[in-house]
Order: sequence, then structure tokens, then C-alpha cells
Amino acid sequence: MMSRTVAPAKTLNAAILGATGYTGGEMIRLLARHPHVHIHSLSSHSFVGESVHSVLPNLTGLELPTLQAHESIQGEDIDVIFACLPHQQSHTLLAPLAERHRIIDLSADFRLSLSRYQQWYQTEHSAPELLHAAVYGLTELYRDSIRSASLIANPGCYPTAVLLPLLPLLQGGLIESDDIVVDAKSALSGAGRTLKPHLLFCEAQQDITAYGIDGHRHSAEIDEQICRHDPQAPEVLFTPHLVPMNRGILATLYVKTQASPQEVVSHLKATFADDAFVHVTDEHRMPHTSWVAHSNHALIGVSPRIVNNRLVLVCVIDNLVKGAVGQAIQNMNVMVGFDETCGLDSIAPRL
Amino acid sequence: MMSRTVAPAKTLNAAILGATGYTGGEMIRLLARHPHVHIHSLSSHSFVGESVHSVLPNLTGLELPTLQAHESIQGEDIDVIFACLPHQQSHTLLAPLAERHRIIDLSADFRLSLSRYQQWYQTEHSAPELLHAAVYGLTELYRDSIRSASLIANPGCYPTAVLLPLLPLLQGGLIESDDIVVDAKSALSGAGRTLKPHLLFCEAQQDITAYGIDGHRHSAEIDEQICRHDPQAPEVLFTPHLVPMNRGILATLYVKTQASPQEVVSHLKATFADDAFVHVTDEHRMPHTSWVAHSNHALIGVSPRIVNNRLVLVCVIDNLVKGAVGQAIQNMNVMVGFDETCGLDSIAPRL
Amino acid sequence: MMSRTVAPAKTLNAAILGATGYTGGEMIRLLARHPHVHIHSLSSHSFVGESVHSVLPNLTGLELPTLQAHESIQGEDIDVIFACLPHQQSHTLLAPLAERHRIIDLSADFRLSLSRYQQWYQTEHSAPELLHAAVYGLTELYRDSIRSASLIANPGCYPTAVLLPLLPLLQGGLIESDDIVVDAKSALSGAGRTLKPHLLFCEAQQDITAYGIDGHRHSAEIDEQICRHDPQAPEVLFTPHLVPMNRGILATLYVKTQASPQEVVSHLKATFADDAFVHVTDEHRMPHTSWVAHSNHALIGVSPRIVNNRLVLVCVIDNLVKGAVGQAIQNMNVMVGFDETCGLDSIAPRL
Amino acid sequence: MMSRTVAPAKTLNAAILGATGYTGGEMIRLLARHPHVHIHSLSSHSFVGESVHSVLPNLTGLELPTLQAHESIQGEDIDVIFACLPHQQSHTLLAPLAERHRIIDLSADFRLSLSRYQQWYQTEHSAPELLHAAVYGLTELYRDSIRSASLIANPGCYPTAVLLPLLPLLQGGLIESDDIVVDAKSALSGAGRTLKPHLLFCEAQQDITAYGIDGHRHSAEIDEQICRHDPQAPEVLFTPHLVPMNRGILATLYVKTQASPQEVVSHLKATFADDAFVHVTDEHRMPHTSWVAHSNHALIGVSPRIVNNRLVLVCVIDNLVKGAVGQAIQNMNVMVGFDETCGLDSIAPRL
Repeated sequence: MMSRTVAPAKTLNAAILGATGYTGGEMIRLLARHPHVHIHSLSSHSFVGESVHSVLPNLTGLELPTLQAHESIQGEDIDVIFACLPHQQSHTLLAPLAERHRIIDLSADFRLSLSRYQQWYQTEHSAPELLHAAVYGLTELYRDSIRSASLIANPGCYPTAVLLPLLPLLQGGLIESDDIVVDAKSALSGAGRTLKPHLLFCEAQQDITAYGIDGHRHSAEIDEQICRHDPQAPEVLFTPHLVPMNRGILATLYVKTQASPQEVVSHLKATFADDAFVHVTDEHRMPHTSWVAHSNHALIGVSPRIVNNRLVLVCVIDNLVKGAVGQAIQNMNVMVGFDETCGLDSIAPRL
Repeated sequence: MMSRTVAPAKTLNAAILGATGYTGGEMIRLLARHPHVHIHSLSSHSFVGESVHSVLPNLTGLELPTLQAHESIQGEDIDVIFACLPHQQSHTLLAPLAERHRIIDLSADFRLSLSRYQQWYQTEHSAPELLHAAVYGLTELYRDSIRSASLIANPGCYPTAVLLPLLPLLQGGLIESDDIVVDAKSALSGAGRTLKPHLLFCEAQQDITAYGIDGHRHSAEIDEQICRHDPQAPEVLFTPHLVPMNRGILATLYVKTQASPQEVVSHLKATFADDAFVHVTDEHRMPHTSWVAHSNHALIGVSPRIVNNRLVLVCVIDNLVKGAVGQAIQNMNVMVGFDETCGLDSIAPRL
Repeated sequence: MMSRTVAPAKTLNAAILGATGYTGGEMIRLLARHPHVHIHSLSSHSFVGESVHSVLPNLTGLELPTLQAHESIQGEDIDVIFACLPHQQSHTLLAPLAERHRIIDLSADFRLSLSRYQQWYQTEHSAPELLHAAVYGLTELYRDSIRSASLIANPGCYPTAVLLPLLPLLQGGLIESDDIVVDAKSALSGAGRTLKPHLLFCEAQQDITAYGIDGHRHSAEIDEQICRHDPQAPEVLFTPHLVPMNRGILATLYVKTQASPQEVVSHLKATFADDAFVHVTDEHRMPHTSWVAHSNHALIGVSPRIVNNRLVLVCVIDNLVKGAVGQAIQNMNVMVGFDETCGLDSIAPRL
Repeated sequence: MMSRTVAPAKTLNAAILGATGYTGGEMIRLLARHPHVHIHSLSSHSFVGESVHSVLPNLTGLELPTLQAHESIQGEDIDVIFACLPHQQSHTLLAPLAERHRIIDLSADFRLSLSRYQQWYQTEHSAPELLHAAVYGLTELYRDSIRSASLIANPGCYPTAVLLPLLPLLQGGLIESDDIVVDAKSALSGAGRTLKPHLLFCEAQQDITAYGIDGHRHSAEIDEQICRHDPQAPEVLFTPHLVPMNRGILATLYVKTQASPQEVVSHLKATFADDAFVHVTDEHRMPHTSWVAHSNHALIGVSPRIVNNRLVLVCVIDNLVKGAVGQAIQNMNVMVGFDETCGLDSIAPRL
């Protein structure tokens, strides 16, 4: 395993694997404005040898390296690799690179225990020792481990929105791990740049649906984290929905509690008191996804009343930023000792 | 109380109170194509004396009466009044009309018991005896009472989507009334044609939010119905959300059960076996709101697995049709002895 | 060539070739409610042998034939064939059917002269004699020829919106054929159910673009029609744009005129005085696409002022209805002697 | 008139008049990240005394001054005032401030000649001498005058998109000023945060319309600029349209030319060769509004063919950035000698 120290002022050379998907493109966009990062190389499956501008014409004015094959990404001078690859491709491609490079993987390939991975993905994992070494990159809750990690399993978008409020309350004993119900709503970019009919504008625009109803992989990721705290905890009942928006996740959590809403608010405020990106909204004002779009912020709202011993919590994030690319950069900042907010100061536009 | 029999072939004269809001406009649109209804008069608060075409330019080619004041709607020849008025205006305006006319009220004014009404609306009810006589118009479940009613309290959009799957399962003893969690998502037309910033295109288009988090009136309506079956039933934990669409409600129900998904499916299929508008989707295929848009259908999906003794049910409707105007016409058809589907045969467009 | 007379009261057996695309699905939806049509058979390229409900789950409650291969559509009892096939497939598939069946073709294969066809589509036409016999189905303007036709080339969506105002004014001598500029905006369903990245929700939702800028095939169709009136007429400068909507075309026409706006309005009103589906809006009120969505209406607005001897005309239609399926049914009604509005009475919803 | 020199390194104190509308909110968002600007004061008509966070909850984490009344904005230490006020309020409020402060006015109040102003706004101008002194802030074309100006009339969104390609081609003699046709499409944010029914989500979402058809004020602004070059130039025929998007303008220009497309491209490329924000797209690739959303870029596309001696040009901008706030900051940068791109480096997100 590599162990390398980078002085904060240095410029890091970053490579992005899978640069032309929705997360890859967002990664270029944010890293291009990071004050201490240079985009060293970009890879693509379908556009090898092409200019990234021809695929992503929104990147006007940026000087960027030509797209190369995933396998050709290498070099002593690469300081950090961001892998924006499909699940199950990541572990194969990253295994040979992990020896020499700091890696932040945005796929699910290093997020689960080996047994959960094999159960949910129905495949062998090509690098179980790496899986063991990987640190789960929910920054605010695992900052210390991230600081010394060389491989980060960057959290999924749904788990980020669910675990930010859930884990601290479970750990603080303010809510029960029994019979947790999570109803999550995601923008369509969560499905990636996939050419499927239900993602076409005309079919998606006036539609909501529940999906993954017979078990969603993000549910396994949520359970994995809860079980670290309480190995006996029952499964979370997690139901994702697609809504016609570009960006944003809203997770509504229904949890059993003996505490009052005020106690819950206080505990969450104390937990995130020193965090730049996680905030508890004022009482009676539930957060909107548009309040965090294009930003790395997460907002948590707590219902002012208890019904049947249950409390309602709402958490909103931008699925592509705090739910993916932004949190990945936040993790890089922590790993190399930069200010955690570096390159992540964009403010949600009102519209 | 009026009691009148209308032979099926006759053409009914219908008046619409509040013809220029979203439900009023939809009512004109559907009634104009009902084979046995003539639109006799239309009222409006803001546009008295104007042509309805100047307010609703989508009604190309229809011959319609000029908009008149609510108070001037009267006449021996009016057979049925559809009231598309704001809550709390309805009971005052309808009281003097109820003696002589069949009324279907789309507001919440006649849906609750007197005590619940006063608790939730913080006002006196001007016609408590009418409230007592009103029949709750969830057609499939109260068809017999509707047949002999002269005042229908047409259900709210959320309660329609929630109660269609919930009531039969409670009555059949297949699910518990304890600790029911309902997460509902509604299109923006549910908020009506109200000039509020959060309903502006630019602010709504990329946004989801939970609202009514400290208690929503539709929650009271749901509880009212459940308590008819089980007076001791605890409150339902109901959380509505707004999503950026024109039409559609998707309600996700999390209910405790000892039954299997197959038993639940069978019971629901048996319940609605003879109904033209309520259908249970095939296993593993959760319904989409777009599958019912512009139609009077409700689709119910049942999750194939049980987690923590809980089952997930999904129900979708068009909030303006089955959730309002369509069900109102369905109720009228039942009241006067028309075929129940008369005037309600529109098919959901794919896009 | 077939010549068959159908008495108005009879029920026609209709076959739809290409039933699962956007126009095919809309065709099923409208024909299913046509009082004198029975859907006899449906074909599909990709879903042979499947239930149409599995592909188009919006068709709840309809009894429909199983999808069969295009080539297997046949039978003495088929009265009319609606071909909703891609351009260049239509002429090959329809050639053997034209001998025995009335056909309405929604592709471009029979809309152009042979020379224009070969120039724009860069391919041989497999049935030039059919092309010669085909009648261009712009109903209001070619009603007499349609009445006696057995093969209809149903107009494209853009040409319908452009030619309805343009041809009568050219024929009446009220505008010049010189230097006509047409700027057209179309909803995304015009591109069909094609799996291309720019049609994905996330890429289309916040986007407008001009396309076909080096020559669009609908431009050839417009020119074809203008040249029938004036063989020397120069090319129309036609620029289509895609806007993020499901349905609707708005064509803005900039034409040179010596006439006054009032004269133009009068001429158009006189031209369409007896037509159920084409209307001139009141002065100063330009039509919106939402006013005609889901309906077969076309609305024409005329600017109240002349600038540089130019007048602005705006025409709106639903691209899938008057711009495709609705006009096809209108043509069928004319061909067989039904009332022209039969099955086409749907009213634009306000939202 | 003030004349003040600011050394580039200094931090400027900026006041924003009208901070809670769409342009005001966007101004806060961009200025908050400008490296050399401090937001000194914010004013509002409706929310005096409130926290800007309560009105604009998207501004998470920013420390901002409390909203005060427009009239109370003053102080020696304010270096620059950005006025985001409604037309016709600006000139009255700004007159007393102009003596002592650098002002960039985003309204139309200082863009027209006095005679054009009175003709189009039907009102007296309260500060005609200021109107005379104001410099039109189309940065790329008037940079020298802007450098020494103390009052900038920031261009309208439509005129920016139209004049960037048009003026250089007119000045270069490559196109004729005769019979110019401009068809422009704007996102709905161009209409501001106005509570009107046609801006409600449900009414706007599936709609396009032409408006201002009897003469639009932005047309006067375009003519004003063209007449500076050619006082005899006839009026431009300008037709704006609203399309259902949050951000973006696409202007399609139809101009008469004797030049070839290649000559036009070359001239535009040469004109903007040193500009960071204006770019000519590659041949055959027309620009999309999504390629510039949230950025200060303008992209110009030139059609590869001439029809009837006419060429088609397309220009896209973000109406709130290059069409308003971004260009205002660009002008401030020029006025005070900062790098012109300072605070304006945001890259268009892909979605």
C-alpha cells in the first residue's frame, strides 16, 4: 500500500477514469476549478482518442487532455485517481493501480463487505484485500479514517442522504434501529447517461415511479453501515423513486424514537456543528432539493411532531455533488490535508 | 332532501360552481364530452360576465354559457351541481342549494365529521345537518350509499390514492391499523391555480419538498375513513411531497402485515374484480403515474417481499381525474343510474 | 388500384403498422375511441408476439390484438391500414398492400415528387407509381382529392403547421412567395422514441437548439407544396428547433406582404370558415401550443403590425395529433364518408 | 461625475439594489465568490429588515447583510452599486446616487436615447443628463468606453444575444441592415419573479408562445444600437418567444448577405479572437443553450448554407449571466481594472 504525504500547497495531478458519463463530466467541471488540482489525464470507454469537448461541449474554454483508454492511465506523476466507472468494472481496473496511486472510487465496488458484495452483485470480487482496506468515504462521519486511507469507497447518493441523519441518531441512541422506513426520491441523473426508454424526456417528464422494489443495492449499502454500529440491526425498508428532475435527492426517514424532536435537532446540530456542508434547517421549515442543487451541502429537516412514536426526518442533497463528485473531492481534500472545502464553494442557484 | 329518479337516457343539466380553477376547467372538459350531460351554467368569482373561453383558451370549439356569479346559480332545470370551490366557501354557498339540487362537492367541507372539521379548519360549519347527510364519494367502496345520496363529499386526491388499497385490506384483516406510514408524492396541480412563488415554473421545476409536515388536512380525511372501520385505530403517519409534474399522485404505503404479498394481491384483485377503474398491476411491475394520466384509472402495485413484517403498496392516480373531477362524474353516474364509466373512457396518453 | 365504398354506419377494420412508437401508440389511443373503427391488427418490429400492454402500459382496459410482424399484416377484412413506420421502410412494406387496401401512410415516403424524394433520401423509391397516385393529406386544403384517394401521404408535423396558413395566403395572392422565412419550434416527441443522448431527460430538459441547419427534409415537403401553386417559387428558409416539451409545434412565419393584417385575417377566416379544426385567433392574442395539446385543432395568429413589409404569422398544433395521427384519422373519415370530426373530439386539457 | 481609480488588489464594497428578485439573487451568488468584492449592503422592496436567507434559502453558509430599504443604501465606503430594480424605478432611485458612486444598472432605464425612452415607456425620464452620460455595457464591443464610465446601462438579455453577432457583421459590411429578421426564444426566468398565471409551473410546462408581437421594448434597444452604426437602418423585425426552461436564450437571426458563410465565420472569429467569453462554434454544429447555462459564455453558430441570399446565425447565452448579472460583473471588472474574467469562471454543468 502506498503511503505518501503531500504538502498542502502543492498542485496534485488527478486522473479521471470514465470522464464522459454524468459523474465524470461533473468531476472535470469541479476539478477544473479546484485551486490545487491539475487534470492530468482522462479516460473513456467509447471515445478514446477524441477531444472531451466533442463529447461534453459545455466545457468551453478549458484545456483538457485527450481521452485515452482506461487501461492506459498510468504514470508516476499521477497523485490521485477518481474512478467514475460502472459498478463491477471498477474493481478489475483499479486493482493494478492501487499499489501506486491514491484512489477514490465512485462505484459500489468497495463499499460492501465481501459477503454482501457477492450476495448483491452475484459475482466474484477480483480484489478482496483492497475491499478490506478501503475506507467508506462518508466524510463527516469517517473523517479520521479517510485522512490515512489510500483507497476510498465513495458513498452512493442514496446512502449519503440517508446515513447523514441516521447514523448519528443511532449512535447517540436517540432512535431505534428497529423497523426503519426510508422513502427516497431521486432525480433522473442518478440513473446515469444510459440509453433506456424510461429515461427519454417524453416518457420521464410527467412520471413518478417506485423502483428496485424487490431490493435495491443502495439498501445493502445502508444496512452495511448500520450493522457496523449494531450488528443485530434489522434491515432498513428502503424504497427509491424516480422523479422528473435533473439533480437532487430527497430522503424521507420514518424512525421510531422516545426522544422529542427538539432533542433530535439538538443532537444533529451538535454532531455537525463544525461541518461546513451539513446543516439542520430551522424548525417547521423542511428543506427543498433546489436549496442544495449544484452545491456540496446537505440539509436535514426534523418534523416538529411525533406520530405513533415515529419522527419524520428529511435530508436533501445534490446527488451528483454531495452524493458523488463533491464528496469525492471533499475526501481528497481530507486525504491530502487541504482545507476540506477547497474547490467546493459553489452556491446553489435559485433556479 | 330531494329524491329524484332520472331515466338513463335523459340529458342532465349540470352547473359548475368555480369553473375557472384547475378542477373547474377539467370538469368542463370532461362534462362537455359526457353523452348525457348538458352544461347548463358556470360560475366564477373573478370573471363574472366574461366568456369562459377568454379565461380557458384551450376549450376551442365548445359552446358554453357565460360565467355568472356563484350566488346567481339557480333554476328548476338544474339537475346536478358540481362545486369546485375553495374549502370553507363551499358549505356556505351550497347550504341554500342542497334543498333542491343534487350536489357533488369537490371541496373538503363535507368530508369530515363535525368535530374533525372544526378541529382542522378552526371554523364553524354553517350546515352541520348537511354534513351529516353527505355521503363520502369513494365510488368503488361506497357505491350503495352513493346511489341514494343527494349530497356527495367527493374525496380528496391524496385520500383517494391512499384509501383505495388501504380500506379493503384493513376491512379484510390482512393488514394492521397500527403504525401505518404513508409517503405521498403529488404533481403541482394539486395546489390549484394559486399565485405563490413556490408554484412558479422557475422555482418548482427542479425541486422536491415535503410539506404539511406538522399535520395535513388530507391526513384527517384518511383517519376519518379508517376510524369508521376501526374507531380505535391510531393516526396514520402521512407525509405529502410536491414533485415537478402537472398531474399525478403516487402514494407509497408501508403497512404491517402477517399475510403474504400473494394474499394481499388476491384480496385486492377480488375486491376490485368488477370495477372498471381500479386494477392491481402484475407482480414485480410497480405502476407509474404516467400510466394513468388524463384517465380515471387507479393502479395498485404490491411489493413482492416483506421486510420487518412490512409490505409496500403503491397506488397511482391522476389527481385531477380519479382524484377529483373524474370520480365526481363517476359518482354522478352512480347517483342517476347511468353506466358508471359514462363520459370517463379517456385513455392515458403515453406522453 | 382499389375502389371501395363503405357505408358510413359500418365499422371499419383498421390495421396499424408500427404500433409501439409514439405515433403508433397515439393511433391506438385515438382509434380505440373512434365510434366506427375496430382495431383489427397491430404490428411491431421489436415486440412480435407480445401483448401491446406490456410495451404501452398506459392502455389500461383495452382489448387489443397481439403484436405481429409487419409482413404478416393482411386479410380481406382489413378496411384501412395506418402505417406508422420509419421513413424508407414504408414504401417497401406498403407496395404489396396497396393493391387491396386503403392506406394512410404517416411516413414521408409518399409526400414528395420522385425527383425530390431521390434527392433528399438518397435512395431509390420502390413504388414510384404509388408515389404518383398518392394524395397529400392536408385535409382542409385537399379534401376533394382525399375523398377519392386510396393512398394518403399524411403530412409531416412541421409542414402541417407551416402550410395551413401559408398555402391559402399564397393562393389568394396576399403574400409573396419570395424570401419566406419560417422559424419552427417542436416538442421532443417529434424525434420519436429514439434512444439518443440528446433526447434523454437530463440533457433535453434545459435545452433549446436549432437543428437540420444544412437542410431539413420537412423543408423539401414545404417546398413541394408551394411549387404546386407556383413552380418558380424560391425555396423557403426553414429552421427547426427542439424545445423541452412533450407535445406541440409552434411555427413562426415571416412573410412579405402588401396586404394589411386585417386583410390577411379576413382571408384566413374565410378560407377556414367551415372547418372544425382550423381557427384564427383574435387580434393581439397569439396562440399557445398548450391551447391545442391532445386535440386536433390548429390555431393561427396574425401579428397586428407590418415591419419592413413583413407580417408575422404563428401557427400551433399538437405534433402527434393534427401533425400526425389526428389528421390521419381525419383523412380516413373523409375517405370513407364519415363525419370529418368523428373520433377527434378531444379537448385540449389546460395542463 | 465621479472619477476614481481602484488598484486591482483592493477589495471593492458592492451594494445590490433589489437583491431578492431573480437577477438580484444571482448577483449575490456570483459576487459572493468574486475574489475582490465584498457585499456591503443589500436592499429590497418587500423584505426590509429580514435576513436574505429567509427569502433565498439557497444561500447556505454565506454571511450577508440584512435587507434594507432601497432609499437607505448609501455610504462613502460603497464602491459600486448594482441596481437590479424594475424598469422605471431605476432612474428615480439612482439619480441621487450617481454623483458619488459607480453604478451598473440592469434595468432598461439608461439604455435608450431620450426620445426612444419616452416613446417606448410613455413616461418622463427623471435624469436625462445621466442617460446621456451612461455607457451601454455590451462589454466586448464597447470595452474602451466602459473603462472610463461611471454609469453603465447593462444590456438586456435579448439584445445581448442578438447584438453580439449582429453588430460586428454590420460594422464589417458583411451583412445588410435591411430586412433583418430575429426570432428569439427565452427561458421563463426572463420574466422575473412575477406572480402571473402564465408563469405557473402547470401552465408553462407544456407551452410555447410568441409574445410582444405588437412591439417589444428589447426591439427598441436593438434598433438603438444598430442606428448608432447606421442611422438610416430600418427596424429589426424581432419576435420573442417563451419556452419552458429556467435559463437560456437562443436567438436565431436571418440576415441578408453577399458574403459566404466562411467569410462570416472568419470575421466573427477575428472580432472575438481575444475575448474569453464569446466563441464561434465549429461549422455544422449549432450551439445549445445548455452549453452555456450558468456560465458567462456566448456561443455563435453560423449556418453552412445561404438560402435566398440569407444566412442563419444562432447565438446562445444564459439570460441571467451573460444576459444580465455576469455581464454586469464583467463590466465592473473592466471599469476598475480587474481581470475581465474575475469571478466569472463558472463552467456550464452538463445537466
